[in-house]
Amino acid sequence: MQAYLELEARKKRVAALNNAMGILQWDQATMMPDGAAPARASTLAELSVMVHEMETGSALSDLIERAESESGQLDSWQRANLREIKHQFTHANAMPAALVEKLVLAQSESEMTWRQARARNDFKSLAPKLDTLFALKREEAEVKASVMGVTPYEALLDQFDPGRREVQVDAIFDDLEQFLPGFVQQVMEKQAQQPRAVMPAGPFPVAQQMALSHEVMRILGFPFERGRLDTAHHPFSGGADGDIRITTRYDESDFTRSLMAVIHETGHALYEDGRPAKWLGQPVGNSRGMTLHESQSLLLEMQAARSEEFIRFILPTIRRLLGGSGPAWEPGNILRLYRRVEPGLIRVFADEVTYPLHVILRYRLEKAILADELRTDDLPLAWNDMMEQLVGIRPTDDRDGVMQDVHWPEGIFGYFPTYSLGAMAAAQLFAAAKRDDADILPGLGRGDVSPLFDWLDRNIRSQGCLFMPDELIANATGAELGTAAFKASIRQRYLE
Amino acid sequence: MQAYLELEARKKRVAALNNAMGILQWDQATMMPDGAAPARASTLAELSVMVHEMETGSALSDLIERAESESGQLDSWQRANLREIKHQFTHANAMPAALVEKLVLAQSESEMTWRQARARNDFKSLAPKLDTLFALKREEAEVKASVMGVTPYEALLDQFDPGRREVQVDAIFDDLEQFLPGFVQQVMEKQAQQPRAVMPAGPFPVAQQMALSHEVMRILGFPFERGRLDTAHHPFSGGADGDIRITTRYDESDFTRSLMAVIHETGHALYEDGRPAKWLGQPVGNSRGMTLHESQSLLLEMQAARSEEFIRFILPTIRRLLGGSGPAWEPGNILRLYRRVEPGLIRVFADEVTYPLHVILRYRLEKAILADELRTDDLPLAWNDMMEQLVGIRPTDDRDGVMQDVHWPEGIFGYFPTYSLGAMAAAQLFAAAKRDDADILPGLGRGDVSPLFDWLDRNIRSQGCLFMPDELIANATGAELGTAAFKASIRQRYLE
Repeated sequence: MQAYLELEARKKRVAALNNAMGILQWDQATMMPDGAAPARASTLAELSVMVHEMETGSALSDLIERAESESGQLDSWQRANLREIKHQFTHANAMPAALVEKLVLAQSESEMTWRQARARNDFKSLAPKLDTLFALKREEAEVKASVMGVTPYEALLDQFDPGRREVQVDAIFDDLEQFLPGFVQQVMEKQAQQPRAVMPAGPFPVAQQMALSHEVMRILGFPFERGRLDTAHHPFSGGADGDIRITTRYDESDFTRSLMAVIHETGHALYEDGRPAKWLGQPVGNSRGMTLHESQSLLLEMQAARSEEFIRFILPTIRRLLGGSGPAWEPGNILRLYRRVEPGLIRVFADEVTYPLHVILRYRLEKAILADELRTDDLPLAWNDMMEQLVGIRPTDDRDGVMQDVHWPEGIFGYFPTYSLGAMAAAQLFAAAKRDDADILPGLGRGDVSPLFDWLDRNIRSQGCLFMPDELIANATGAELGTAAFKASIRQRYLE
Repeated sequence: MQAYLELEARKKRVAALNNAMGILQWDQATMMPDGAAPARASTLAELSVMVHEMETGSALSDLIERAESESGQLDSWQRANLREIKHQFTHANAMPAALVEKLVLAQSESEMTWRQARARNDFKSLAPKLDTLFALKREEAEVKASVMGVTPYEALLDQFDPGRREVQVDAIFDDLEQFLPGFVQQVMEKQAQQPRAVMPAGPFPVAQQMALSHEVMRILGFPFERGRLDTAHHPFSGGADGDIRITTRYDESDFTRSLMAVIHETGHALYEDGRPAKWLGQPVGNSRGMTLHESQSLLLEMQAARSEEFIRFILPTIRRLLGGSGPAWEPGNILRLYRRVEPGLIRVFADEVTYPLHVILRYRLEKAILADELRTDDLPLAWNDMMEQLVGIRPTDDRDGVMQDVHWPEGIFGYFPTYSLGAMAAAQLFAAAKRDDADILPGLGRGDVSPLFDWLDRNIRSQGCLFMPDELIANATGAELGTAAFKASIRQRYLE
């Protein structure tokens, strides 16, 4: 197994570079002085090129082939590691260097243009940059598809959710598209008959919100000895192996946004922290793609923390730390507040019921773009029409329409589905966990996450990339990924 | 000049790794959660090995040789860059990989043992670790000396102060050893006739000291758009090209320590920030060794900031931000406070007059260790004898004697002289600057550092490694590095 061990040594080195980049990116978003941006971009670019070189080439290809011929000597984790090494190689090596370079340039230009175009509501200035970028993404998708034997869209999706097929996504999204609009209608009607949820009145000083964030993270078992919380423009979970850095931002008029962001990112962080220690630095020790990652953040944010049990437990803490009093702070109102459904134009502000509709729209449009069935100039109209059809509201400008997300201007295709596939997985995993351990909900009611986390550690976090995403979900829940648990969970929460 | 350009490309990559390590090390000292220490150590070790590999080997040696044959096509900066590239190669390539590995291990063991041995005042437990380490350092010094054609001590000194010769250091230190003890006596006698300097009474809350640090840094032109100040166990200046991170620590009973540390580190930071932008990432764009670096921090701390002009200018700001009032805050007392000479046992607390005596002691002893003329077991006695002879006080335990510094347990030999050579250079540069521009002292009196900084930018900061350290000093001051300016400056400050 000499060839295999040589691969492990190479991957250890790649991991050191990735860990360094993880901290540099966190620093860039939280600590770095603005004027250091060009120098930092150049350092990160150089390290990325080094990683790319270490992930490609015929020497590596030969080594993988030799390791595969030794696979009888490998145990199951080593075999899975070899499969993941080959998967990374396939993605990296499929890309001609010239295409990589053109993509980096086109992404950077299009993203910079997007920042200004969005502020000025000026899609026309963005369109030619997108057009160039989309053409390159089509080339990437086709090149990879031919190597991997999948459809072009699947080739991009596979980077974020390995092994995922279009037919699976179509089945889940078709189902949701059928179900959700009528369901939203029902919920709105029920909501209309109830007292209107009232937002507790601020301001909520940042220092108090920070204290609340830390206290909630403590209750949720965030490992502060191996991680920290800071402030950034956007909430994210990052850092390095064994050193998890999460961020949030604070709005003094609304404490719930930051609180929910912190819970969401804590879910991501606990997944990272719970990976098999022995395999950190090797591909098999990674988290199992973005659908699974999102399942862990949404399970905490949408399933566990929004359970009636947890809200009743945490409310006194929130009131104590923020000094809240009055009718807006009564449990009944807070529960209604957290279960408000309201169709809107902006994905990142959407509630969990309408959120998948935003994702379905993007999924359909990005497939059309990749298939060259939709001209870039026609994108705003297509967006607005589909938004009206799916969500029932029509954007009045492109800022709140096609230009709201950074993903396409950054050349990120095939990522959007994982948000909603993650929501499906979160509901399915939470249902399975509750079925396996009846103390999970009562635990949340007393602020004890250990029953839930024991289950997650055993079934998800400790598994790394031992299995493919679908196997992992099926092993944990006894079923294929589907919509049933999600539908049941929102029915129970919003209609019962 | 293809070979030369290939060398530049390689160095750009090494710089990216060094910049990444600079930020990782800063993060480790300021932000990193404690539990991430093992993971961070492993990442830094892997990146260091990568750098070492990129700095050595026959391919690089060939490339340097080819570039040297093209040197007719290179301009003066490129030629200097090639000289520096070769210098780095010589140091790195001289070391057999096995020796590097043994040294890393021995340094780590000896430094860990030192932490505990120092706390317990137990030199006996440290001695065997030092013994092993010293033997390896002797091996390193001899290996490098034979490649470089210098003495073993010079081979180590050369890493920190390229081109420096023992005979130069001996001349300067012999001179100081002759001069300082009698001078200290004179100053002590004069001090005894003056009112005793009184320390302003605290406590000085950390938040107020932080505000003062930032205000003083602003006055001194610290580039906050490309740098920041944070808190760490020890003051240092670090970070990356174009991104200067300095640190300090706060003592609520004594604001002067933190303030002086901040000014000192700002001096280091301004040197880093003032290097030639075009050459950042190439060896010729680096600062010109530790003697020059220390000259820049000490010039700011000991020459500029302790001038009567600057102290009178800054005092109202200090009083305003710290709320100071009463006789201890009168300019006369503050000036006396900053010009107090008091022989002591601890180098880092020493005043500028007795400081060189501490360095001379270390210089003599580390030369004896390297020459194998002093047994490790005899080191404490030799230390105490020499301390008594040079400074006039005898340590009562090894904690305040031979175990006070981390340098030897970390395997750092040849570094100590640069502290005092830097002090000589600081005085010499400041004298030359004042001679060249009569507005420098009046500028400091009105809080305007631009006359001084224009001179430093032109003569030192912008010069990178275009010249060797001695040439740089001679170009700037018209004289070789010596003791005259230092002696004149302390005579003027302490006796006039």
